[in-house]
Amino acid sequence: MDEKAFQDCYEDAHSICFGCGRLNRKGLQIKSYWDGEESVCRFVPLPHHTAMTGYVYGGIIASVIDCHGTGTAAAAAYRAAGRNMGTEPHLRYVTASLHVDYLRPTPIDTPMELRGKVREMRGRRIVVDVTLSSKGQTCATGEVIAVQIPEYLR
Amino acid sequence: MDEKAFQDCYEDAHSICFGCGRLNRKGLQIKSYWDGEESVCRFVPLPHHTAMTGYVYGGIIASVIDCHGTGTAAAAAYRAAGRNMGTEPHLRYVTASLHVDYLRPTPIDTPMELRGKVREMRGRRIVVDVTLSSKGQTCATGEVIAVQIPEYLR
Repeated sequence: MDEKAFQDCYEDAHSICFGCGRLNRKGLQIKSYWDGEESVCRFVPLPHHTAMTGYVYGGIIASVIDCHGTGTAAAAAYRAAGRNMGTEPHLRYVTASLHVDYLRPTPIDTPMELRGKVREMRGRRIVVDVTLSSKGQTCATGEVIAVQIPEYLR
Repeated sequence: MDEKAFQDCYEDAHSICFGCGRLNRKGLQIKSYWDGEESVCRFVPLPHHTAMTGYVYGGIIASVIDCHGTGTAAAAAYRAAGRNMGTEPHLRYVTASLHVDYLRPTPIDTPMELRGKVREMRGRRIVVDVTLSSKGQTCATGEVIAVQIPEYLR
């Protein structure tokens, strides 16, 4: 895996996100990395991230899938351009749509692993498939449709 | 609107959810109510629920849609059975799938309103459509497929 997380390459102004901003002290601060053609994120849920005793809340799962997906989209865009992540002009992506299928409860007492794969890149739109597993079982799958950040949000 | 929120009718063991549990002090503690045939939830985002300056994070939006959807499913199941919410045996729903379309950024400096409508009830499965608006504009739409909680999670 690369040493520096995708999210640690975001400029300060875009590093306050609850899901992945390194400057959001109350946030999840997820970190994603390349592992060959796949992106990987290991997330350790906290006790209050629960849905019910023993299991992770679906909204936290959706959040981690969301930020891992948009981070993977940004990293893939840099890769496709042959550029190092974080170099200017910055390439950042926001979520146009998010879909999550919850296949089984995700245990809260162990780290979860997310793996992302870019399925499609077309213009400003990148589709990322994400699989979330824990204790060797796939607990959820997700699809993130990411679009390059519009100018008015920069 | 009814006086008591759907989520305040959940039994204690199912009231620790990060999204809607009244006993989760670090959670979002969303509250949903009937307003005729629709369910409504008004949620005030906190400053750290941001994606970028001025706007709400998509994972928080997904979370609020998720818990408003499963809450609406539970309330609809009680209604269909002609029972008061919270009476035993408890009817609780979990999320099988969640889909969110982000139509425009959601302002963080004002409450958001979610409205839910039951589209389909079949056996243990209830589909709820949710619309999220802020400042008079629809910012996101969601679909929650909820299933009655399996026995092994009770």
